[in-house]
Amino acid sequence: MTPDEFKQAGYRMVDTITEYMRTVESMPVTPKTKPGDVLDALPISPPENPESWDAIHTDLDSIITPNLTHWQHPGFFAYFSCNASAPAILAEIAAAGLNVNGMLWSTSPAATELETRMLDWCAQLFDLPKAFISNHQNNLGRRGGGVIQSTASEATLVALLAAQERHRDLNNPQTGVLVTSDQAHSSVIKAAMIAGLAQGPDDQSRVRLVRTHPDGSMNLDELARTIDAIHAENKSIIMLSATAGTTGTGGIDDTPAVRDTLDRAHETGHWPGWLHLDAAWAGVAAVCPEHRGVLAGARVADSVCINPHKWLLTNFDCDLMWTRDSGAIIRALSITPEYLRNKQSDANAVIDYRDWQIPLGRRFRALKLWFVIRHYGLQGLRAHIRCHLEWAEWFAQQAQADDRFELICPRSLGLVCFRLKHAPDAHDPNPALLESINQSGKVFLSHTAAPKDGRFTIRFVTGATATEFKHVAGAWSIIKDAASSLANLG
Amino acid sequence: MTPDEFKQAGYRMVDTITEYMRTVESMPVTPKTKPGDVLDALPISPPENPESWDAIHTDLDSIITPNLTHWQHPGFFAYFSCNASAPAILAEIAAAGLNVNGMLWSTSPAATELETRMLDWCAQLFDLPKAFISNHQNNLGRRGGGVIQSTASEATLVALLAAQERHRDLNNPQTGVLVTSDQAHSSVIKAAMIAGLAQGPDDQSRVRLVRTHPDGSMNLDELARTIDAIHAENKSIIMLSATAGTTGTGGIDDTPAVRDTLDRAHETGHWPGWLHLDAAWAGVAAVCPEHRGVLAGARVADSVCINPHKWLLTNFDCDLMWTRDSGAIIRALSITPEYLRNKQSDANAVIDYRDWQIPLGRRFRALKLWFVIRHYGLQGLRAHIRCHLEWAEWFAQQAQADDRFELICPRSLGLVCFRLKHAPDAHDPNPALLESINQSGKVFLSHTAAPKDGRFTIRFVTGATATEFKHVAGAWSIIKDAASSLANLG
Repeated sequence: MTPDEFKQAGYRMVDTITEYMRTVESMPVTPKTKPGDVLDALPISPPENPESWDAIHTDLDSIITPNLTHWQHPGFFAYFSCNASAPAILAEIAAAGLNVNGMLWSTSPAATELETRMLDWCAQLFDLPKAFISNHQNNLGRRGGGVIQSTASEATLVALLAAQERHRDLNNPQTGVLVTSDQAHSSVIKAAMIAGLAQGPDDQSRVRLVRTHPDGSMNLDELARTIDAIHAENKSIIMLSATAGTTGTGGIDDTPAVRDTLDRAHETGHWPGWLHLDAAWAGVAAVCPEHRGVLAGARVADSVCINPHKWLLTNFDCDLMWTRDSGAIIRALSITPEYLRNKQSDANAVIDYRDWQIPLGRRFRALKLWFVIRHYGLQGLRAHIRCHLEWAEWFAQQAQADDRFELICPRSLGLVCFRLKHAPDAHDPNPALLESINQSGKVFLSHTAAPKDGRFTIRFVTGATATEFKHVAGAWSIIKDAASSLANLG
Repeated sequence: MTPDEFKQAGYRMVDTITEYMRTVESMPVTPKTKPGDVLDALPISPPENPESWDAIHTDLDSIITPNLTHWQHPGFFAYFSCNASAPAILAEIAAAGLNVNGMLWSTSPAATELETRMLDWCAQLFDLPKAFISNHQNNLGRRGGGVIQSTASEATLVALLAAQERHRDLNNPQTGVLVTSDQAHSSVIKAAMIAGLAQGPDDQSRVRLVRTHPDGSMNLDELARTIDAIHAENKSIIMLSATAGTTGTGGIDDTPAVRDTLDRAHETGHWPGWLHLDAAWAGVAAVCPEHRGVLAGARVADSVCINPHKWLLTNFDCDLMWTRDSGAIIRALSITPEYLRNKQSDANAVIDYRDWQIPLGRRFRALKLWFVIRHYGLQGLRAHIRCHLEWAEWFAQQAQADDRFELICPRSLGLVCFRLKHAPDAHDPNPALLESINQSGKVFLSHTAAPKDGRFTIRFVTGATATEFKHVAGAWSIIKDAASSLANLG
């Protein structure tokens, strides 16, 4: 394909995306696809000869798009959002065209240095402590910094590996365990499985799950008991992963108090452990000064992660991870064969982000942040978050005002967890309610188990870029109507 | 930004990329950037107010592009290439616009099923055994399948975790070790560090590096000795990672013979270990029937990975990983909180690729493969590979015919490893030669240490999408001239 042919095909693809932006609202949020439908529509074998762009475009429109779950639909209120935005898409076009591999500073200086600057910008945006600024040296001689990881799962794994490194560095002879809450994201246990601390999701010999309050936040009395039990077994804590915004219910651990509880371990001669703060979803709200409290834990954490790809208008994937001790990460992950050596790295004059992550190669993801932050400005980012919070509050008020519903805990930022009340011995109508709501095709909500009693709970999360108040109001209508229909049926 | 504004900005970005394709050849392959140059050009703090697109575009052109290493430059002959192509860029535009998260089948059925079909297409393309086809059940009841990983590093780590799972599953009471060659990619040792088998790159208590031949391939006598030593320590092999195409010199392990050597361990009552084949770079050549031998190891491997993002015209990131035993991967990596449960997964009717990888979320990367394979057809892909091989052969012949140079081992596919001869006691002129070549700005080559004696060796790799014969010929001229200048100076 010549550059001119690419240009024509590029315009056409931009047209397709523009049309998708305009029309996604008219599509069902979730498709009616049955397992195998798409497979059956695709040839068994690859083509011997080149095919035309027309054929490819036609199939994209007819086979792929109708069988997607539309995460960019304004009625997408499930999981946490995965928000695209025009400037982020434009940056992805640029990144794809340049297609550089920024594994080392020397393999694309601008990719590395733009990333460094963006992490420092975002540290200011979220009012993180200075200790997280690139190369800021603390009084222990440790250097801070940030990096773009693919996902929070990888940030948690990298934090755990750094924590293990520090644990070893202290010549700690005790067996180390990972502590988190029973509402922490599944990726914390998955990190333990990957790092060899757990031989499966239920292996709790070196993973301890602290019980939580009904809102999903960690119970500190339980934490104190957990720590005592760990020490009684002559074990120590490698890492505690606290959460600002649990996936189920948006619970926010009182991380400063967690730190105090950990630090009391010093009195009994134990290393208090690395404190990681998983603020993947909720952390984004801290762009608004009135929500800085969400990240109070950052003041006392050794590492923290926040996902602009969830709620800050930045396309997937883009997880921001900061640490006060980049040295621990680098010692845990660095290995330098001759074929990667270069003058700037040898002189220790640059950051090589390959040493901060699991893979070696890396895409140019900092461009997205740069475009998004400059296009919206801090003002625009704050306005975006505030709208979603206002709409979620409105939704929570409706649910609370309707006698048929209950919130299982107070609204947490854009997340409202609610259910239909029902007699304790009656069949739980909530799974059927959720199915009925989603079958409308207008909205998509997901569910969780209530931290308190495990009961089926419906989650409603604002965050999709295209959502406006009318979509939230429309969702509430659909939910009310579905509840009424269900009551009439029952 | 309205859809119409996006459309205009999208056209402009397509124009920018088109212009980049046209002009990249006129830029120096590697920039003269000094550490801090780009940081200094970027404001310390994010903007409070929105900025204009003009400002963003201007800065992209003036601050970022001139300070990149141009991996798409036709004179890029370093490392292994990281090849973009027009259809792959178009697919990235589509993927960015749709921005779906295919973590579960249900969160975007078409993303999952297109990926399944693409892995099956590629299995045919590379003539892999049927055991790797999705859901193909072998005589042990194990099911095959493939998945897109971000990088080969992650494929190797996932293979290691699956191997550990199988090792445990056999109730193997012996301590397990990882075996690979001393020329295997650094990511193999990094996987051991991440999985808790090694406490740093030099910790060889549970990692054994088998010595290699001068071409970088594994020495099988040394392997037999390594295995005996492992058994003598009452340890067993968790995984052996063989390489088809080492990063340094392109060495191809005789993997069928490796398998035989491993299997002999059965006679002494030891589990032979999981055999992973890292064919990240060289495997792509197997699209050509005459190069199928490169993947002979796939016939005997438990898992294999190949990177279209290196040499098959597919933008980064795109690593293809296949296994004969997807169950082992899923058991090693699956954890299902209530908030991810859904009917199709509960019914075991679908593939949820989140269980095949380290992160939870995932981009829609199968689109790239679909567009690339359909646009080029198998014919076009084969022609692409054959050109690069022909040019590399021409280059190798020139170097061999020039008395001043020596190849340190035979050409391996698109990779030629050469050096200036010099008297044993003289200063090695090759680092200076490489620096002089790269300072031309016309080409970029990298280096490695020779497997035999560790001496500085220059690597020349064909593979960049834009490269034509004239660029290879031009590179040879530059190298000859640089050698002459160096001789005149000395």
